[in-house]
Formats: sequence, C-alpha cells, structure tokens
Amino acid sequence: MRLQSYVTGQWRDGTGEPVVVHNAVTGAPLCEVSSEGIDFAAVVRHGRDTGGPALRAMTFHQRAAALKDMAKHLMAHKEDFYALSASTGATRADGWVDIEGGIGTVFTYASLVNRELPNDVVMVEGEMERLSKNGSFVGRHILSSKPGVSVHINAFNFPCWGMLEKIAPSLAAGVPVIVKPATPTAYLTEAVVREMIAGGFFPEGSIQLICGSVGDLLDQLEEQDVVTFTGSASTGRKLRSHPNIVANSVPFTMEADSLNCAILGQTVQPEDPEFELFVKEVAREMTVKAGQKCTAIRRAIVPADKLAAVSEALQARLDKAVLGDPAAEGVRMGPLVGRDQARDVRANVQRLAQECEIIYGGGEEFALTGTDNSSGAFFPATLLRCDDPLNQSLVHEVEAFGPVSTLMPYTSIDDAVAIARLGKGSLVGSLFTHDDQEARRVILATAPWHGRMLIINRDCAAESTGHGSPLAPLVHGGPGRAGGGEELGGIRAVKHYMQRTALQGSPTTLMAITSEYHPGARGYSDAVHPFKKYFEELQIGETLLTHRRTVTEADIVNFGCISGDHFYAHFDEIAAKDSFFGKRVAHGYFVISAAAGMFVDPAPGPVIANYGLENLRFIEPVAPGDTIRTRLTVKKKIKKKPRGDEKPNGVVVWAIEVTNQADEAVAVYDIMTLVERREA
Amino acid sequence: MRLQSYVTGQWRDGTGEPVVVHNAVTGAPLCEVSSEGIDFAAVVRHGRDTGGPALRAMTFHQRAAALKDMAKHLMAHKEDFYALSASTGATRADGWVDIEGGIGTVFTYASLVNRELPNDVVMVEGEMERLSKNGSFVGRHILSSKPGVSVHINAFNFPCWGMLEKIAPSLAAGVPVIVKPATPTAYLTEAVVREMIAGGFFPEGSIQLICGSVGDLLDQLEEQDVVTFTGSASTGRKLRSHPNIVANSVPFTMEADSLNCAILGQTVQPEDPEFELFVKEVAREMTVKAGQKCTAIRRAIVPADKLAAVSEALQARLDKAVLGDPAAEGVRMGPLVGRDQARDVRANVQRLAQECEIIYGGGEEFALTGTDNSSGAFFPATLLRCDDPLNQSLVHEVEAFGPVSTLMPYTSIDDAVAIARLGKGSLVGSLFTHDDQEARRVILATAPWHGRMLIINRDCAAESTGHGSPLAPLVHGGPGRAGGGEELGGIRAVKHYMQRTALQGSPTTLMAITSEYHPGARGYSDAVHPFKKYFEELQIGETLLTHRRTVTEADIVNFGCISGDHFYAHFDEIAAKDSFFGKRVAHGYFVISAAAGMFVDPAPGPVIANYGLENLRFIEPVAPGDTIRTRLTVKKKIKKKPRGDEKPNGVVVWAIEVTNQADEAVAVYDIMTLVERREA
Repeated sequence: MRLQSYVTGQWRDGTGEPVVVHNAVTGAPLCEVSSEGIDFAAVVRHGRDTGGPALRAMTFHQRAAALKDMAKHLMAHKEDFYALSASTGATRADGWVDIEGGIGTVFTYASLVNRELPNDVVMVEGEMERLSKNGSFVGRHILSSKPGVSVHINAFNFPCWGMLEKIAPSLAAGVPVIVKPATPTAYLTEAVVREMIAGGFFPEGSIQLICGSVGDLLDQLEEQDVVTFTGSASTGRKLRSHPNIVANSVPFTMEADSLNCAILGQTVQPEDPEFELFVKEVAREMTVKAGQKCTAIRRAIVPADKLAAVSEALQARLDKAVLGDPAAEGVRMGPLVGRDQARDVRANVQRLAQECEIIYGGGEEFALTGTDNSSGAFFPATLLRCDDPLNQSLVHEVEAFGPVSTLMPYTSIDDAVAIARLGKGSLVGSLFTHDDQEARRVILATAPWHGRMLIINRDCAAESTGHGSPLAPLVHGGPGRAGGGEELGGIRAVKHYMQRTALQGSPTTLMAITSEYHPGARGYSDAVHPFKKYFEELQIGETLLTHRRTVTEADIVNFGCISGDHFYAHFDEIAAKDSFFGKRVAHGYFVISAAAGMFVDPAPGPVIANYGLENLRFIEPVAPGDTIRTRLTVKKKIKKKPRGDEKPNGVVVWAIEVTNQADEAVAVYDIMTLVERREA
Repeated sequence: MRLQSYVTGQWRDGTGEPVVVHNAVTGAPLCEVSSEGIDFAAVVRHGRDTGGPALRAMTFHQRAAALKDMAKHLMAHKEDFYALSASTGATRADGWVDIEGGIGTVFTYASLVNRELPNDVVMVEGEMERLSKNGSFVGRHILSSKPGVSVHINAFNFPCWGMLEKIAPSLAAGVPVIVKPATPTAYLTEAVVREMIAGGFFPEGSIQLICGSVGDLLDQLEEQDVVTFTGSASTGRKLRSHPNIVANSVPFTMEADSLNCAILGQTVQPEDPEFELFVKEVAREMTVKAGQKCTAIRRAIVPADKLAAVSEALQARLDKAVLGDPAAEGVRMGPLVGRDQARDVRANVQRLAQECEIIYGGGEEFALTGTDNSSGAFFPATLLRCDDPLNQSLVHEVEAFGPVSTLMPYTSIDDAVAIARLGKGSLVGSLFTHDDQEARRVILATAPWHGRMLIINRDCAAESTGHGSPLAPLVHGGPGRAGGGEELGGIRAVKHYMQRTALQGSPTTLMAITSEYHPGARGYSDAVHPFKKYFEELQIGETLLTHRRTVTEADIVNFGCISGDHFYAHFDEIAAKDSFFGKRVAHGYFVISAAAGMFVDPAPGPVIANYGLENLRFIEPVAPGDTIRTRLTVKKKIKKKPRGDEKPNGVVVWAIEVTNQADEAVAVYDIMTLVERREA
C-alpha cells in the first residue's frame, strides 16, 4: 500500500522510489511512502488562497465549534487509530497518550478559545495605552491572523498528538496547516487526517498532508508563513538556517529532544512516599512508549547516600516491565519504532558507557514475550550510573531515544542544581520532595533551564498527570538544547500564528477598529434606556449619563447598619481625621451600590443578570455633601452560543465611571451582564 | 583619539589597525575605533559571573530605581551628548529624538516596572491553571531572569536611543548587557556609557561596551544568552544563521529596515485637514535625521486623482527643508552619517529610478547652507514617483536609507492595501483619514504586515507622536522584511530576557515558590485579626474565616432603599419567578457589602484603605434565608516605596470567598488594600 498525501483538494499518490515502512513488532512491510511529483508551490498556494480566506472568514468561536466537532468525530473513530498504533510498537496505554491525549488537546483548545477569545476575527490584547496628555492619541495592540500557511514538521513518536496539538491552535488562529509527519509512523497520521477531511469540518484548503519528504516546500514560504518543527536537534538546526526561512524572517518554532532530569530531594527518606513516587515515575518514563518521548527522564539525580536504595528499587520495578509484542498478554513495553532506531539507541548507550556503568539491561540478550524480535526493533530497559556527573559531558548531551536513563549522585543541593543545568536547556524537569522550602530553592535555581517543572509530593501525586505529559494550558518547549520554542500554553499558542500590531490613533478610531470602547471615544446616546435594548441593538460606545445623587451622613449610617461595616474611616470622627482620607468618608461599596441604583432600569427587560465586575479602582473619596452621578457605556459585546435551554444571549461589558460634583472620577470599573438576543 | 571599550571592569584601548571615523559635516577625522585585543570570552564571563549574580540579587523595583537614577543622571548631562550628536550630522531636533527620546524610554521603563512588576525577582504570569478534578494538582507560569548576558548590536542612526531602549528592559529583567554600537557613531554611545558607568547605578559587570568589531563574541554565547540586532537585513541574516546562535537556540531579535508606507485615504479631499497632515508627515519623515530612520516613510500611497496635488504640496514643503550644517542658522536637515552612506543612497536612488521617475532632488547639484560638502555626506531630499506600483518590485525592496521617498498612486482601497502588502513586512504603516470605516477596512487588511500602525486625523493629530516614533508602551518591530522581531511594548520586552517556565504541583507548593496564594493551598490562621497586622507580619496564605450572617427579606428591602436599586429580580415576585434566578434574590452588591461587614475590623489599624477590587464573579444567587460567611486570605504582597510624606506601606491583595450554608461559593474576588509597614 502506498500512503497518499492530501494536497490541493485531493488525495494523491507520490511517484518515484518510495521508502518502505515496516511493522515495528513483526518487521513486515506495512506501506510505502513518497511525496515525489507533488507541486509544493501549488500546495502552499492552495493553503494561502483557498484555505486561508475561508478560514479567516470564520470567527474564533466558529473555528472553536469546528474543532470540537472534529474532535468528537475523531473520538468516535478512535479504535481504528488504536489498531494502527499497535503497528508502531505502542501498547494500548502508549496509544492512549497519543490518540486520546491528542484528541483531548483539540477539545481543550475548542473550549479555551470559546472562553477566552471574542466571537470575532481579531484579538485585542492588553489595555489601552494613553500616549498623550489630553488622551486624544492612544494606543492598543491587536493580533490578526497571518494570511499565510503553517507548516508542521513532526516527529515519529506522536503521530496523532504531535499533529493535533499543533493544528488546533493554528486553525483556531485562522491559519491553514500543511502537516508533514515523520515517515516511520505517517500511516497513523494519514488515517487521522483522512477522517478530518472526510468530516469536512474546516473549509477546503485548511488542512493538507504531505506523506514523504518536504521537497522544496520551505523554498515556497514567505513572510506570512510559519514553520514548527519537532524532531532531532541536527535536523532542526538545518531547517532553522534554511536561507529562505532566514531571508523572510519566517517564524520557526523548534522543539527538540532534551536531557530532562528528575531530582530526588535531599530531605526525602526511603520510607517517605516521595521516594516511591520518584522510583515509580522514573520507571514509568523509561518504559512508556519504550522511552521514545522528548519529555522522558534521561537523568535521575539522586542524593549520593540514597543512590543504592534508589537503584535497587528501580531495578525491581523495571523487572516488571515485560517487554514484547504489545498485543500479547502482560506486555508492558513494546519495541522501538524500527530497526534503525534500535541501532541508534544501542550506539548511544555505547557512547554513554564511556562515562557510565551499565547497571541494568543494555545487552544483546533479553527476554521477549509473544515475539522473537524478527523486526529487530526491540531494546531492553537500560539503566546507567554516572558516578561523577559534574565532570562528565556525554551524559548531559547524548540522548539515547529509547528506554534508557542514567542515575547520577549528588551531595548538596547546589550540586544537584549544577547537574540539572548541565543539560543546557530541557523541556521538563521534576523534583520529588515534600519540603516546600527545598522546592522553592531548587525550582528557582533551575527554572531558567526548563520550559516546564513539576514538584511531586504526597499531596498532589494521586492527581498528577506526570513528568512526561505536556498539557494544553501549559507551555511546552524549552530553551537551548530543547530548541528554544514554545508550544501550547493556552491562548499563547494561538498567538504564535498571528501578527501583533500596535495601533495608534484617536480613541474613537480605535473603537471602530477594535470593536471595543476606549475612554475618550465619542459616545452615542438615545432616548431609550440601554437596559431596555437587546444585545443586537446595543452599540459599542452607547452611553447613559444618569441623574445625580447627593451623598449624606445618613447614607453612611444606613450603609454601615445594613452591611455591618463600621470601619473607623466611615464612623469615627476622631480617628478619621488622622486617616488617609482626613475625614469621614462614604463606604466604597456604597458608592458602587448607589451607582447601580442610578443606572439600573428596574422593570424586566433584556438584561438578564450582572454576573461579574472587573478593574474597580476607587480614585477619590466621597464625603457627605458630595454629589455623584454615573456614566454607563457599552464597552464590548461577546455573542454566546446558548447552553441547554438558555435563551439566546450575549455578554455585554459596560464601562462605568462614577464622578463627583467637580466632575472628578471617584470610581471606575467594568461590569459584565448577560443580555438577551432578539435572534438565536 | 581612540575610542575605548568598557570591558571586564575597565576602560580599554583596542590595539591594531583602527577604523577612522569622520565628522559628518566637515569630514574631519574624529576618532579611531578598534576592538582588537579584547578577550571576548572574558567579557562574556564577566557579565555572566560578576554582573549577572549581582543584578539578579536586586528586585524588579530596585532595578527600576537604578534605571530612574541613571536616567536622571544622563538627563543632567544631555548637553554633552547634544554636542557630540551634532558631529553625526544631527540637527538639535534630530538629537532630541535620539538623546531625550532614549533617556525618556529609560524613565518610562522605570515606572512601568515599578507599577506592573512585583518587588521580587520572579514574575508570575497569568492565572492558576486547574489541572485536576479535585484541585490538588495545579499549574502556573513564572518567568525568571536568564542567567546569561544580552548582546545588543545596534545601528548607527540612534547611538543613544538605540542603546537605551534595549538596555532598559534587559537590565530590568536582571540580564547584564554587552553593547556593541555601530562604528560611525560609536563615540556618542561611548560618551553615554561613560556617564552610566561613572554613576555606578548598576553593579559592576551589568553594563559592558565594545567599540569596534564583535570579533568572536558570538562564538562565546550559550543557551542562556540573548542577542538583539538592529541594522541591515543582510548583516542580520548572517548573524541569525551564525552556527553557534543556531546550535544553542540563542534567542535572536532582529529589527531591520523596511519599506514603510503611509496611505492617504480615498475619502480625503485636498481641503480636508488630513490632506495637509499627510503631506506634512511625509515631508517630516523624509527630512528628520536626513531620512536615516528605520521607521521613515519610504512609500507614500495616494489616490491617483490626488497624486498631482500631493506631489505639488509635498515639493513646496520640501523646498523649506534647508540642507546644510546643522550648526548654521535656519538649517533643517543635516548630512548623512558619512560619505559611504551618501554613496549607498545615491546608488539606491539610481536603482529605484529604473522603476520610478525622480520628480524632486536626486541630482548631484544642490544648495547647501554653512558648508561646502567637504565631508561628501550631504544628500538632497529626493522624491520619486512610481506610476504602476502593483507591477514593480524594486520600489518595494530597495531602501535608500536617506531623505528619499516614493509617491505611488492607487485607484481603489483594495489596490492601496495590495501596494502596502508588497512591502512584505514593515515596522510601521500609517493611514490618514477621518472616516473610521475606511480606517477599519484598511487597517484590518494590512495589520498582519505591520508591527505598528497609526491612523492620523484632525482629532488626534495635535497630540500624535508621529509615524516615525516607536514608543515604550507599544511593540516596535515588524514581520518579514522588518526582521520579525519585537522590542519595547511595555513589559513584553522585559520578558524577552527571561525564561517562561510552567510549574506544576500542589497549590501549597506553588504558593511557596511563587509567593502567591493559590486556592486549595494549606492556609494558616491565628488569633490576631489580619487587619491588626502590619505588612511585614502578614503571611501569604494567612486566612480569616468570619462569623456567619443569615440574609433576610428585610436586607433586600433595606438595601434597595439605600442603593436605589429596585431591579425586578430583587423586588418583583412575579417577574422574578420567570427570571434567570427563578425567585427573588439579594443584590450582588449587598453580598459583597455584607462580606466587608464580616471581615472588616472597625478600629484604626495598619490597614489604611481598600482601593480596588478585581475578578469578581457572582457564582450562586443568595436568597432570603441563606446564610453566608466569608473567607479572607492574603494572596500577595507588594512592598512599595513611600511617595512624599506617606507612611511606609505596601499593597496587600486579599482573596475573598463568600460561601453559603451548603459551603458553595456565592461570590469570589480579590480586594487590594494599602497596609502600613512597621519599618521603612
């Protein structure tokens, strides 16, 4: 069978001499892969000219809905993917991380985008910046979709997750994707893409797939395109220096393997739960996906006086990690992805052995269940020990991308930190301790070398997602050896596919561009109270200036009585004189309550509820005799999809300013209300 | 005179054959520059090992205070800098942008950092991420200073601003700088650095200066170092591809020249103020610094039917830009920085003339005031016209880095947008229109190609800072041809020098690491009411659980009377039944007022005032008969420097949770209070 690519709206066979991909367990030929004959310039054009405009016409919420529908569809087909995943050498548990972990990431992005981004095509970021004395010239940042394509060059170890964790933020950002999976496991990616295309969740041209080499794809890229790369550091360096990438300043996000560490705290005793948690996690990271994870623990850093105990416990645990055909009963670890990979791992273990002692596995002889190693891809769990890690180098540089880890002793926290740093930049590091002061010290000293760090102890272990799992809300990537990239991290990843632009102009102009009210913008008001208007009828910038109210001493007394708040600044003439305010003042909570009394329209109407308040600042105190009034302005509107049997509605954020008789602001804040829509 | 470098704690002469720098006006030799003999490995080590640790021991607020003191000192010496600036060919107005603009940027960063960052060494970013069902495993992002150095390679055109706008965020981030100015104007940078060092504002090793070539400096960099580059695209590409930069994933921020555009809106008539504003701005951008600005307007895009009128008005204005010795009376434009630069500009104008007609200036003959062009660095304001910009290429690619701009006609908004995009990525673009719908259309269509965009009209022109001025709060940089980098933009720029790390662990552990309370963390409480404690005595996580209060119908009535808020959901039994809540409920403002009544300690004490409230969400309604109570927890503390005769104080942010009898949260929010310190 020859794998097809999905390009320019059709499934296409590559011509020419293919690469043959084998079943990792049996070694039997599985499929042929070639991208020869594909016109990469046409592929890029198709994404840019067909996919891009259609995708950018959708709002963030529409893209999120499409992601959710796509994730549901993929989840319904997951068993097909598990079946193929087994051929890569993955156990069911390994496959879960890749398949359901990947689909879960898409679900998470769908809901993140829905929650955090507007139902619009432009993202507004940060606050308005006042750039001038009188406020007639102001600034604001927006992010808009890059009108190019994003090329994702992925690694073999996560054919499903590795694709989905990148396309979710890219499609959410409105940027069409061109996915290039690694050849050894491209057949699983291809199967998933086939379902994504068949479902028609995104406009044609939003998703293309290239099985085989990238040919001259990178030569087609321009200033609006983006490349992400996951894989070996050497390939990454080559691509990052590609003349066309450099010439066009094409953003290049790289995520490479790294020598991730796990540290056992100095305060941990063998009888503490953290000791067992550490041993379990190291063993798990060595054996899950046969150690073929960029985030696996390669360096286990252990107090010297506990090295023997850790080593013993770890070996006992590795004894249980039965190696063999994942389909066979009791097997806990499968083969590597292929014969070449096994050869590389073996060679790298030999290099490491120049500085380390192999204390477990490593040899040519090992037991197998349900198979005879006909594929040549099996490699046993292998533990090394490096006695002088501060004075060695290979052990911090050479990654054996298989079930291989090295124990390293340390004698002081400073040494543990120094060893961790020798990794020169990692995706992840973890620390096992129940001493939070030890945690603070180690984490703050090593954080600059890591994109993610966990502190595991008895309080969180049961719910921990583990050392090796990147999660959608958290940044994935690391400095230096790990490639210097950042993926995931919630909406941060969506922004990677967008261009940030600082806008400058009058508040009124920026209001027109951003669809958000800016203080100083020309308002608009009419005879109808805004609380009587439906969501659709309210205009950004629409304003209500209320009647006035004189605050009296009786108000303070009554408010103190009903709230129970008898703070001296409100009630004690003597102490109030010496206070910050210099006199008795009204409660701040009274001011905002009285403001509501001024702007609320009491009768039933489209405003359903006030559910929140933000950015409240009390600017000037209000004292008896002061007269206040309130200005209520529509700041922004977010159309929502009704949940359950909710009436159609949207969020309206109102900017509120309470002023005194001298027209000084006494309080400013935003309130959030749910407002009914006329139409669904 | 040979310029010195300031490295490894001393002022040093470079050895070897120097480059001779000439006065731009007279052509007389001014100084010699060479960095030969400098041990660049030692320079980097000095920054990393001496400057870095001392700088990172300071908090953000301490670094901000040092920046402010340094800026004050430089401002006091500004006349010395103006004197040197004149030798670069700058008029007083040109020098103002460079010198006072640069010092102003340092002031702005000092106050930004003070306002937005904690008085600590670690930045906590975003919200807590709940990663597990029961909340025992959570996530949070921190940013910590990169323990390396930042190398700033700067352009000749802003020897002062170009240095200061980069070192301010770098030093604020705790990363020592190595400044490498461009040789033709290095003498001004050197003078400024001399004052910075003499003042001793930052620990030794925080600031180093290399006058001359960078030698093998880039070969010394590692995974914790950062490089920023401003200058030509060709040099930028070379440095970005430097094998050591690539191998160590050294973050490389590039800001290159670009073919920035200004667009005159289609709706603007010659009699409109925006017409005159456009002409004025194009002329200004051509002549300020003799057009040697990365942000200058190179392409003036004009409705075809107004091209003649614009061309005429612009030429009339350029006639007034008297060229000559900036020291001479009436001179408005000085020479280019040197003879080589003049030769380059002339050559590039000749290249542009292949596609354009030279309609003003450009020749060998031009009038000069107060000088005879003995330096050979003078070049006249030159205006070109390109009649078919959509079908030309050089005019969008070739930058004549001098007083040169090209007029381009367009016939529809779509064409104007298409012409703007042909710049393939610019630092800045501007639009002149008073029609906000036109503004929205043009800006949204061109924003992905720009790092900054202005919309100038009659409302904001008087206060506008202009097309060519990057401002500290706004991002500076642009995609594609502009280099793909981002500088400034407020605190964003500080983050460029820090490593973002996602932390995972129990809420209690993350509280210990971030010095911020996380919901679910183990609290702490004692017999003393927290309002009776001074700033220093309050512990992060310290909690007060108040008495309870049963909310009654009388509360609703009384609260309605005092606030004036008689919304139907509180008072209308009939309508409330059909409402979102299904029954009459208490006012949300009552709930938070009653909460204050529960947690406030009435007597005078260290809590001075409640000045703000954030993140309020009403989660469950409160109805008559419900019993509420409040939990008040110290969330974070920010030590402040007292202003004026203020008592020493700090900000304490309290997390507040109001719960009902079923222990459900009914409202959650944060309040900000000023709390007195025992000690200054």
